[in-house]
Amino acid sequence: MDTVGSWIALAGTVAFAVTAVLAVAPKGVDIFGAVVLGIITAVGGGTVRDLILGVPVFWSTDLTNIWVALGASLAAFVWQSFLARGTVHSLMLYLDGLGVALFAIEATHKVWQLNFGLPLAPIILGIVTAIGGGLMRDVLAGRKNLLMSRDIYAIPVLLGCTLYVILLEFAPGNSLVPAGVCFVLIFGLRAAAIHWNLAVPVWLVTGSREKSEAS
Amino acid sequence: MDTVGSWIALAGTVAFAVTAVLAVAPKGVDIFGAVVLGIITAVGGGTVRDLILGVPVFWSTDLTNIWVALGASLAAFVWQSFLARGTVHSLMLYLDGLGVALFAIEATHKVWQLNFGLPLAPIILGIVTAIGGGLMRDVLAGRKNLLMSRDIYAIPVLLGCTLYVILLEFAPGNSLVPAGVCFVLIFGLRAAAIHWNLAVPVWLVTGSREKSEAS
Amino acid sequence: MDTVGSWIALAGTVAFAVTAVLAVAPKGVDIFGAVVLGIITAVGGGTVRDLILGVPVFWSTDLTNIWVALGASLAAFVWQSFLARGTVHSLMLYLDGLGVALFAIEATHKVWQLNFGLPLAPIILGIVTAIGGGLMRDVLAGRKNLLMSRDIYAIPVLLGCTLYVILLEFAPGNSLVPAGVCFVLIFGLRAAAIHWNLAVPVWLVTGSREKSEAS
Repeated sequence: MDTVGSWIALAGTVAFAVTAVLAVAPKGVDIFGAVVLGIITAVGGGTVRDLILGVPVFWSTDLTNIWVALGASLAAFVWQSFLARGTVHSLMLYLDGLGVALFAIEATHKVWQLNFGLPLAPIILGIVTAIGGGLMRDVLAGRKNLLMSRDIYAIPVLLGCTLYVILLEFAPGNSLVPAGVCFVLIFGLRAAAIHWNLAVPVWLVTGSREKSEAS
Repeated sequence: MDTVGSWIALAGTVAFAVTAVLAVAPKGVDIFGAVVLGIITAVGGGTVRDLILGVPVFWSTDLTNIWVALGASLAAFVWQSFLARGTVHSLMLYLDGLGVALFAIEATHKVWQLNFGLPLAPIILGIVTAIGGGLMRDVLAGRKNLLMSRDIYAIPVLLGCTLYVILLEFAPGNSLVPAGVCFVLIFGLRAAAIHWNLAVPVWLVTGSREKSEAS
Repeated sequence: MDTVGSWIALAGTVAFAVTAVLAVAPKGVDIFGAVVLGIITAVGGGTVRDLILGVPVFWSTDLTNIWVALGASLAAFVWQSFLARGTVHSLMLYLDGLGVALFAIEATHKVWQLNFGLPLAPIILGIVTAIGGGLMRDVLAGRKNLLMSRDIYAIPVLLGCTLYVILLEFAPGNSLVPAGVCFVLIFGLRAAAIHWNLAVPVWLVTGSREKSEAS
């Protein structure tokens, strides 16, 4: 099971870095900027989580994720036109979804075990871990970030991490099954959003309400 | 007196979250984004302060502020058109000013007691605590932030925290009266700026000087 | 030698603050914003480095850099039109290059001695220290930052810090000569880029490749 987790983490890290480079490429970024933004996207969220937890940042003892993000960013820069093709890009979005689901549940688990700010902090830091790197990338690249879009990206994370905390609280014991269920929930919702191109409904968005109220 | 402080902190947190949601609403943000930005605005500055101080983040042991910011953001999303009305919005701006004044003085006090980087760090971290969350909100929402505006928002904080450090240094003893004086100074200046719609005078702004020199 | 380092650090801090104020001046920033952005530019990168290392931030025990950045920012605000002149501005760019080179090598050295995340982390945190403050300034000022430009600014830092890590690894012993060599490498490349107005070649930039492929 740990091995499965490691492979998903690897695939997720590759996908975070590759989608980052593809996302900023249209803005015109050089190879250095592409690699920096790829690495930040892959490890930025977990870094902020560890700073807030007051524990050593996870990559201070194991650089695997950074090496993988470095290699994947370089590869994405070189094979950019291949990776930007419809099918390959779609595959990357799904792998990114796997990464988001895994990193969120792992983070919630870590915070829960540290007994840190229960019950809200495990959910908050699960979200920070999953989307923090992407937010930093978009801020640095001058792109609109997902908080300001109607993408269904963070809401599955919120639901999955919340459910996981509820399960840990009310069904203590082996955490593997709850973790698996919540992982599948997050990835399933995200995959559905990618496949059917779903967006947050208009009535849950402020701007549109305001506009319709103003008219 | 502690009770008064608690009530002001509560009102300030509500105002931070509500004004955050109202500020980003015109950009079109969904309910998830609104709540995230509301919470970041309310606790972001204090979080950075605690990371720099190397102490546990304040919400790791007491989630009150986050629960309040969560509830206030949700309420602001739902009652957005009511809260955006002139009178209510004004009230929120004044409550926000109360929060800014309280959080700044509290932070300066905390840093002073930790004997951390005297005499500058208590002032710097007072400012960071008061305006840090708002800066993060504006960066994430793609809005012009207060550093780039002529709003009189941070300057009262600078004056109040500086005076507080001077009083602590040269009039040691009971810190309650100095704290109260500086709190009133910050809130008074901010309230005056809101009431009379005051802005930083042009000769203290770079762009306008440059333009007039260029012409 | 330490004295030489101190003087370079002083000149670098002044240059960081002054170039920051000159960079944001056209956007129209008041004296408070100018000083805040000057200080953030001068000490922001080192602050993030220390947070990630889990050591006390360097300015908590020695405020010299902050006082210097404060004074330099105020001076830059007042003498803005003088400092913006061609020759003086050029001088500032070169001093900025000296600062970048010094702070990067010092940071790499510090991380190496802490045995933190070798061999990648010393390079990463060298880069973070050198360019982190400038990135924060540009994000807060709503400017395009250097990751999104073709400026040759961070690439010399990458090369110099990488070489320094290689030398520390394979030629242990006195680190003064390797440090000097890498300092000269970074400053030399940066100075050449300023003098001849060099930019990253187009084939190392994504946007242009994409555009030419699209046409």
